[in-house]
Amino acid sequence: MARTTLRPEVLTDLGFFGGLFEFKGFQQPVLVSSVDGVGTKLKVALALAKHDTIGIDLVNHCVNDILACGAEPLFFLDYIAMGKLVPQQVESIAKGLAQACREVGCALIGGETAEMPGLYAGEDYDLVGFIIGVVEKEKVIMGKTIVVGDTIIGLPSSGLHTNGYSLVRKVFGETLPVLNTYYPELGLTLGEGLLKPHRCYYHQLKPLLPLIKGMAHITGGGLIGNVPRVLPQDMAARFKSQAWTVPPIFQLIQERGTVAQSEMYRVFNMGIGMVIICSPENTDQLIEALPEAKVIGKVVKQVGKARVIIE
Amino acid sequence: MARTTLRPEVLTDLGFFGGLFEFKGFQQPVLVSSVDGVGTKLKVALALAKHDTIGIDLVNHCVNDILACGAEPLFFLDYIAMGKLVPQQVESIAKGLAQACREVGCALIGGETAEMPGLYAGEDYDLVGFIIGVVEKEKVIMGKTIVVGDTIIGLPSSGLHTNGYSLVRKVFGETLPVLNTYYPELGLTLGEGLLKPHRCYYHQLKPLLPLIKGMAHITGGGLIGNVPRVLPQDMAARFKSQAWTVPPIFQLIQERGTVAQSEMYRVFNMGIGMVIICSPENTDQLIEALPEAKVIGKVVKQVGKARVIIE
Repeated sequence: MARTTLRPEVLTDLGFFGGLFEFKGFQQPVLVSSVDGVGTKLKVALALAKHDTIGIDLVNHCVNDILACGAEPLFFLDYIAMGKLVPQQVESIAKGLAQACREVGCALIGGETAEMPGLYAGEDYDLVGFIIGVVEKEKVIMGKTIVVGDTIIGLPSSGLHTNGYSLVRKVFGETLPVLNTYYPELGLTLGEGLLKPHRCYYHQLKPLLPLIKGMAHITGGGLIGNVPRVLPQDMAARFKSQAWTVPPIFQLIQERGTVAQSEMYRVFNMGIGMVIICSPENTDQLIEALPEAKVIGKVVKQVGKARVIIE
Repeated sequence: MARTTLRPEVLTDLGFFGGLFEFKGFQQPVLVSSVDGVGTKLKVALALAKHDTIGIDLVNHCVNDILACGAEPLFFLDYIAMGKLVPQQVESIAKGLAQACREVGCALIGGETAEMPGLYAGEDYDLVGFIIGVVEKEKVIMGKTIVVGDTIIGLPSSGLHTNGYSLVRKVFGETLPVLNTYYPELGLTLGEGLLKPHRCYYHQLKPLLPLIKGMAHITGGGLIGNVPRVLPQDMAARFKSQAWTVPPIFQLIQERGTVAQSEMYRVFNMGIGMVIICSPENTDQLIEALPEAKVIGKVVKQVGKARVIIE
């Protein structure tokens, strides 16, 4: 079943094939796309029967992904698959998708709801998002101008965002009593802490893009997995872990699961949702414009195999 | 885990966010996108452990979807989710995706492989495709010029394409002995017949697009569900079912499941994979250029509620 939600500037009478989009106003447009899911954060949402924020997670994840090369979102499509259609659930998911799209001026141009009996158990579903954005060719951010000595700035995450949930579920399980346990250090129940929506960095970073040389959206793989791909060859990122406070939810997971520190940094964002790299000259301007941001490291010459060092 | 397969014209060093695409050579480009899965055809592929054509199904489905408004494919992204990563399975699926993309000159620009323990059982997986295509604004095909008396031409499907598998599985089950049974009327085993790849209409229709007023890709909902959305208000499509032969696989399903004729036409494509609507003047030229195509009906004034009449 195809759903279509079209903004007026889209040719509304053509919505049925997923959506059309007239494309204008760019000199040398480069299209940037990303496809993603929300991983097993879904299972936490299912356990708590709370589906109105998982769509926000998905959209924000996708928006950040393409923002990392300087792109602004144009439009978004979603895919929701379930064993048996549960209309209220779809509506709730779609509400979150629509809200997050609206917040970044992205057209929620269409979607597919698939009923797949035998593939998804009970009320389980999968949710996939697809985003297309655009950036002028000369404004593409790809890390090419990064040099040794450049500053690494971290922007705080709101929580786990959409990564590490399989490990979390191993540690805590996903029963209601566990998820509904209140933790004073979180100021929330575990379930509330885990379901905090993935933060979107679009509005705060958009006006600052000209000052930025490279960006990494910290998803699966954490700082260790995501930062190297934005670095030029023979360079590494050296982080000062004392420069930021790892939020209590990560400490809670680490303690309960006796997870090694190194694994924590490989699985979770550890409180840093987006990394930006800039010249030392632009550092102050960025830090001033981004009140929550912190200098958390710098670009160094690569010595040995490690491309990310966390001290 | 993000996978990226980039063509040279894509900025290869930027592949990591799903892919960039420089966009040029169009006057008034309209972007057309579609998201789709392959439904429970997946379950048949899983039962037969045959995964090298399901990617072809997905790409061809998406290509046909956007072709229906005159668009040519630009690029494609996929999402494969499974409980536990089975590398050979992913490789086999990706091979089919790559092959079908290559055949229509579409860049397989990236993808996401998600491991979702607890959501997918055993070796089950879901597979989703996103396509972006482009068409000049003045060449968008949207059915607006269709008038009463226009011809409806049908292009043969290769089989069920990607719809109706939930019903098929209800009728036959999905055990190996059943799927491996040879049917003389098919010249194939049931499983082979069911897994025939979704046919792609891009190459044969592309040179003929200027002659076409409207097109409907016959997916879930069959002729009854898909043709009305391309018709202007107050018009209906009248099909002569004697004009084409319903392929034996549909007769087999109908007999075994004692499925009502009306339901067959609502669930399956019944041998017609793409419907094109043209003026009576262009009919001969189209039929000549499309050796397998047949005139299967015409556009009539709507009388009563029915927008599709199958006689």
